[in-house]
Amino acid sequence: MENISQIISLTKRRGFIFQSSEIYGGVGAIWDFGPLGVEMKNAIKNLWWKKFVMERQDVVGMEGSIIMNPKVWEASGHINSFTDPLIECKKCNARFRADLMGDKKQCQNCKSEDFTESKDFNLMFKTFLGPVETDADKTYLRPETAQSMFTNFKLILDSSRQKVPFGIAQIGKAFRNEITTGGFIFRSREFEIAEIEYFVKPGTDENIFEEWLNLWEKFYIDIGINKNKLRRYEHSKEALSHYSKRTVDVEYEFPFGWSELAGVANRTDYDLSQHQKFSGASLEYFDSETNTKYLPFVIEPTMGIERIMLALLVDGFNESDGNDGREKGDIVLKLNSRIAPVQVAIFPLLSNKDELIKKSQEVLKTLLGEFRVDYDASGSIGRRYRRQDEIGTPYCLTIDFESLKNDDLTVRDRDTMKQERIKISELKNYLKTKISNS
Amino acid sequence: MENISQIISLTKRRGFIFQSSEIYGGVGAIWDFGPLGVEMKNAIKNLWWKKFVMERQDVVGMEGSIIMNPKVWEASGHINSFTDPLIECKKCNARFRADLMGDKKQCQNCKSEDFTESKDFNLMFKTFLGPVETDADKTYLRPETAQSMFTNFKLILDSSRQKVPFGIAQIGKAFRNEITTGGFIFRSREFEIAEIEYFVKPGTDENIFEEWLNLWEKFYIDIGINKNKLRRYEHSKEALSHYSKRTVDVEYEFPFGWSELAGVANRTDYDLSQHQKFSGASLEYFDSETNTKYLPFVIEPTMGIERIMLALLVDGFNESDGNDGREKGDIVLKLNSRIAPVQVAIFPLLSNKDELIKKSQEVLKTLLGEFRVDYDASGSIGRRYRRQDEIGTPYCLTIDFESLKNDDLTVRDRDTMKQERIKISELKNYLKTKISNS
Repeated sequence: MENISQIISLTKRRGFIFQSSEIYGGVGAIWDFGPLGVEMKNAIKNLWWKKFVMERQDVVGMEGSIIMNPKVWEASGHINSFTDPLIECKKCNARFRADLMGDKKQCQNCKSEDFTESKDFNLMFKTFLGPVETDADKTYLRPETAQSMFTNFKLILDSSRQKVPFGIAQIGKAFRNEITTGGFIFRSREFEIAEIEYFVKPGTDENIFEEWLNLWEKFYIDIGINKNKLRRYEHSKEALSHYSKRTVDVEYEFPFGWSELAGVANRTDYDLSQHQKFSGASLEYFDSETNTKYLPFVIEPTMGIERIMLALLVDGFNESDGNDGREKGDIVLKLNSRIAPVQVAIFPLLSNKDELIKKSQEVLKTLLGEFRVDYDASGSIGRRYRRQDEIGTPYCLTIDFESLKNDDLTVRDRDTMKQERIKISELKNYLKTKISNS
Repeated sequence: MENISQIISLTKRRGFIFQSSEIYGGVGAIWDFGPLGVEMKNAIKNLWWKKFVMERQDVVGMEGSIIMNPKVWEASGHINSFTDPLIECKKCNARFRADLMGDKKQCQNCKSEDFTESKDFNLMFKTFLGPVETDADKTYLRPETAQSMFTNFKLILDSSRQKVPFGIAQIGKAFRNEITTGGFIFRSREFEIAEIEYFVKPGTDENIFEEWLNLWEKFYIDIGINKNKLRRYEHSKEALSHYSKRTVDVEYEFPFGWSELAGVANRTDYDLSQHQKFSGASLEYFDSETNTKYLPFVIEPTMGIERIMLALLVDGFNESDGNDGREKGDIVLKLNSRIAPVQVAIFPLLSNKDELIKKSQEVLKTLLGEFRVDYDASGSIGRRYRRQDEIGTPYCLTIDFESLKNDDLTVRDRDTMKQERIKISELKNYLKTKISNS
């Protein structure tokens, strides 16, 4: 695939991703997720939570608010330094990020070369708490989820039986008033992050960094991303954020080039020490084994949910060459079975035979709630297969006349295109095993 | 329980609910969810989604953005009428909702009776898209989730194979800049809604309203709410919102009185017709059976996730009378097993015996990822039971010396206090059956 337009078109047409407020012309770089998109997004989030919270005893979850006390953003440094350099074309008033324009500044809109001086623009969305709009009431939509894991560090430590090293995990929305957006859902103003703040004893941070970096990459490969389209990008010492001792991005080769999918940062004790300073609360950890107190270092593995989603869509997008039993040009979305928005589709072979419909509905009932299921009795079987291939459904079940006699049905596998007859009594286990091994 | 303070204290101490930004003195009426709170909240959301989206073929999900095009809020009427009457004490500047003060207006803060004139205060949080803060760039955090289901109505209809009647479901955050807050997480400025917009043919709306009202009540009873603490409140014709033909609240008897937990409204075709008018897009439904076009009516069943959570906490909160094998005053949180943040706790009988720990860790590994599991080897068994009772853990497993010989363990049931020996090989099925039947 050479550009992203086929993905944009497919995902709109089939109900994955819409422009927010589309009937009003949209709203810049903000997206909605339709019936299939929300299922895919939730599947990713649930797998992530299962892997990194539920299956581990050293990571606990939390959910922080989007609106926080504004002092949080003073302490974190966002009020002072979460800015992009903004310049404006004097002729047409189009706005650009000065740092992305290169040496030869020319307006992409009207070709003028006459710009205002660059000024720092803070990327946090601001709002006001309560009915008065003074500076004292001003606050912000969080531009990242990390800070609530730091402000709650002590409350979580005191209410759980965790000991360092341990992690706090969160999936949640964050907001950035980006000047330059783009890449479909790659850089949006409203987006969702899944991340862990993993608190460690200083000195153990470098090894634990490596562990998380490996786990982070493995997650992508496990959910079906092509290993060869992933690479690591190590930030140079000079380019590191002010809080970071080391940062490595996991990049994916998108149609628009290699871009950041995820990252791991060694935030040292920067955040806890800032919050200690600004709040006056002690955030030190008491190590009962050595009878000492210290501020833990923090390893932060983070990933963007919409970016995972986009990478999976790009990676899964295939057009048939006509040699796999499909017609040339047919779209097959090869999503991992645990991620596919519809996991199982059920077809009565003919849509005008009551006994086939009755039987199909019976099978449907046994699968609802266990799997993400679609029932389709409309159009020819070939057309129904194409419809399911396009949205990545891994298993299509057909109920035919034989099914009525033998209590079985045909399972067609999206990837191998093989058809197999399976007893209805064995169907649930068959599908469970297939899906959980995918 | 006579007041809510015990719940507030328990849920903070055990990591369910914290004030947002607590180390900075909090932020008015906004809450964070700790390790146990987020698990409980997610469990409620997942059960809701399974029940109303996954198990039904006539409801599809979606996820809309929090920041929408501001024209949405013109069309919906929120810019003009989503207001509360605000008055301010001239002496101490405390602010109140005029409509909640009764006839005899006296400042609750300084007892003055000298107030400003009442003025309408819009409850939407406003913000600005892009770097310029003009009226043209002003937008709002959504005060309800419903509108994105209306603005996406046609996109969803065109991308799915749904026919009227069908529903669009969404769980998501909404924000209201309330003047008067309170009741712990009952009325927060940032909160989460689970709701369905169910599109029906005009004329069928009244019956379908009844169906949803029954389903809505049933959901609460299914997840363990005491039926006798639920009642219906029918809005009088005079008190109905401008868009509503009928509204019924489901109320719960909280410690602070009967209050709204959920509601069902018949929004008629108000919203679709407003969006049609303001956007210029046709939102009519073409009925292929009768070859006619019409604007569907909308039945809206809605519930607040934090309110469900609070009702479950209140309903589940028990102090032992000392006759159930516990000490008098011990807290037991009787949460449904599907909702409890920890479903299974595993204890080695003694924490200094390697073979017991090893065996316990083996059992732990087989359960991780399947259930929400806690491992606890700290303190006496009695203390560990109390710890789990307080957070509502329905099943506590103890590995003792007999376990090493017989490959079994003791399961202690929170509610019956009975202990049962179960083979480890049968444990998973035993727990699955118990939990799914709860």
